[in-house]
Order: sequence, then C-alpha cells, then structure tokens
Amino acid sequence: MKKLLDLLKWRYATKKMNPNSPVPAEKVEYILETVRMTASSSGLQPYEIIVVTQPEVREKIRAIAWNQSQITEGSHLLVFAAWDDYTEQRINMMFDLVNEERQMKNEGWEAYRQKLLSTYPQRDAADNFQHAARQAYIGLGTALLAAAELEVDSTPMEGFDAEALDEILDLRSRGLRSVVILPLGYRESENDWLVNLKKVRRSREQFISELS
Amino acid sequence: MKKLLDLLKWRYATKKMNPNSPVPAEKVEYILETVRMTASSSGLQPYEIIVVTQPEVREKIRAIAWNQSQITEGSHLLVFAAWDDYTEQRINMMFDLVNEERQMKNEGWEAYRQKLLSTYPQRDAADNFQHAARQAYIGLGTALLAAAELEVDSTPMEGFDAEALDEILDLRSRGLRSVVILPLGYRESENDWLVNLKKVRRSREQFISELS
Repeated sequence: MKKLLDLLKWRYATKKMNPNSPVPAEKVEYILETVRMTASSSGLQPYEIIVVTQPEVREKIRAIAWNQSQITEGSHLLVFAAWDDYTEQRINMMFDLVNEERQMKNEGWEAYRQKLLSTYPQRDAADNFQHAARQAYIGLGTALLAAAELEVDSTPMEGFDAEALDEILDLRSRGLRSVVILPLGYRESENDWLVNLKKVRRSREQFISELS
Repeated sequence: MKKLLDLLKWRYATKKMNPNSPVPAEKVEYILETVRMTASSSGLQPYEIIVVTQPEVREKIRAIAWNQSQITEGSHLLVFAAWDDYTEQRINMMFDLVNEERQMKNEGWEAYRQKLLSTYPQRDAADNFQHAARQAYIGLGTALLAAAELEVDSTPMEGFDAEALDEILDLRSRGLRSVVILPLGYRESENDWLVNLKKVRRSREQFISELS
C-alpha cells in the first residue's frame, strides 16, 4: 500500500465521475468496514451510514443537493447520519455491548457509563447532535483515505438540504439526521475541471504553530 | 505500509504512555503534514494545530483535562483549534491563496467565492464555529491513522475545559477555539488497562443500512 501522505495527495474532490464505472461491491464493503472500525468519543459510534444505490433515490437526492452530478454518476452514495440526541437507551446499548463482547464488567467502565448517563441525556438535543456529527466526520476522514487506498474516487459534500434528505431517507423516524454525503465512483478525467489543478493548502507556518 | 484496516485495528485510545519514550520529531512532522493535506469544506481548512511540548504548559493543560496522564506522559500534544467564525477576510485569504498557487483566475471559482462571502459571514458565529469544528475532526481522523502508520500511539480527548485551554494557549485572541486534543507518545503496555481488551464496535447490521 502507498503511504498515507501519498493517498492524501492522490485524492481530490472529484467533480465528474464516469457513470459507466461502478465501484465493485467488495471495495465499498472495505470502505464501510474501515469507517465502522474508526474511533469515536467514548466509543459510542453515534452515527450510522446509509448506502444508497437505487438510481431513482439518488436522482431525488441530487435534486436537493445543488444538482451535483457525482451523486448519480457514482455508483454508491454514502450518507453519514448522526444520532439526533444521546439517550439513556443509546448509551446503555453501547456499554452493554462492550461488556458482552469483553465478557467482563469493570468498575471504572461502569462509573464512566454513569458519568455519561448523568450528563449527556440532560443536555440539549441540539448540542448532542453537534457532538455526534463531529464523530461522523472522524469516520469521513477515514472513508476518504480508504477510498484512496483502493483508488476509488469520492467527493465529500455538505451542499444539500439536510431536512429534505432526512425526509427522502426517512431518517428522523430512526433518530438520525444527515450530516455529510459521499458519492463513490471513478473519475472521468477528460471532463473533470479539477483533476489537473494544483491541490492548495495553507503553508505549514500558517496552519501549525508550536509551543515548545 | 500496512493496510488501513489493519492500522485501525492496531490503534486504540492509549491510556498509559511511557514518559521516557519521546516521539521523534520527524514522525510528528509527518503526522502534521498529513493533517495539513486533509480535505475540508470548500478547502477552507478552518482550523489550526498547536503543538505543545513544553512540560509546564502540558501540566497546566492536564489540570484542566480530568488529570489525564497521557497529556504529560506523551512527548507532544496536538491541539486542534477551530476558527471561531468565518469572516470575509478568512474566506478571501483562502480563495486568494488558491488563485496565487494555481496562477489563474477561474469564473466558476470566483462565483463560488461570492456565494460563500454572501452566506458564511452572515451566519451566527456559533454555527460557523460548529461547522469549522467538524472540519477539524476530518483532520483528527487522518491524524489517528498517520500516527498508527508510524506505530505512534495517540489518544483523542474531548474531556477538557475548552475555555480554560483557550486561555492557557491564548487562542481566542487569534480567533481560535480548541475542539479536541491528541497526545502522541508510546504505550506503556504493562500499565495500560485497555491495551489487551477487545476493541468493540457495533455490528455491520447495526451500523450500516442499504437502500438498493
């Protein structure tokens, strides 16, 4: 495998995907699995991923997402949807799962569960959602790299009507809210205005500072 | 290099770091560079990283972060600090930089600049900060993987008093607000309660759904 830094240099927000080049199922599966294994705050994994392949549904989504063509040109659309709130039930579900999988109960871990139970559910749902959404973005960071590892192109998108998408996918009834979407596909280089342009980042001096 | 999925399985939120095993500067540099190259919304990179090595400062930070020992046991502490707001000046700075680096001006790109200028600065600073903070978490996702690639341990932490940290590092005067911190170091396995415990994630069925 290439070095991570090379993967980051290789990838870009693909503007034009080839509609006749679907991503093989096993590659999508690998990308999903890397997101599933990604870290999250207290290990709660407070989001889900919905994989949309149905063309009609992707047409509908494209219509509420500035008509961005990659949504239908790619073969798979990953929708990152965060928990709308932290509830007692959700927190217990993850802590119970950990106990079950580890076949043990741990005093420190149980104290930590109580700490979360006594703080998270009491906070505003809006604050909890923001916190959950951030965790989904750690997963997004992983997904971008995992796609690049397999030489699959992807385009992270925030430019969509989240409420409309929640409705199309019926997310609210599941306690979820869409936060970011990621079409997967293969670049159609000859029609992509961005493919050959320089990737621009702030200089190290402008992005990193030291206290040493 | 190992496969990404193996890096994800290797890493864990290290609970005990060896205070006598500093991370070599070039490894820290590589991790920082991967974050710098990471994607962000509209390419704005709306955050900065502050690298803290000074022991006294890390002691102070540990004191406002539930006394988590990795902050002083590790050799480097990365502080991810998001822009407190999107301003006209910040947006123009990035668009100008892109034009300068690419040695070109592009109509579509300039229209996109105007679109952001006419929406972002008008929004509540709090909303803009939340948006910026999410971008920092994409970078966090990269940093966790880059550290693992170099077999460097890391522990993402949200458990700290962000206002107090902003004060210690004087971030607010720079228009920044701390969102997540990441000590880097090497695990001290014999004293780390988590190192040998199973990594637990929700099943694929519980984390991923399909619309196909």
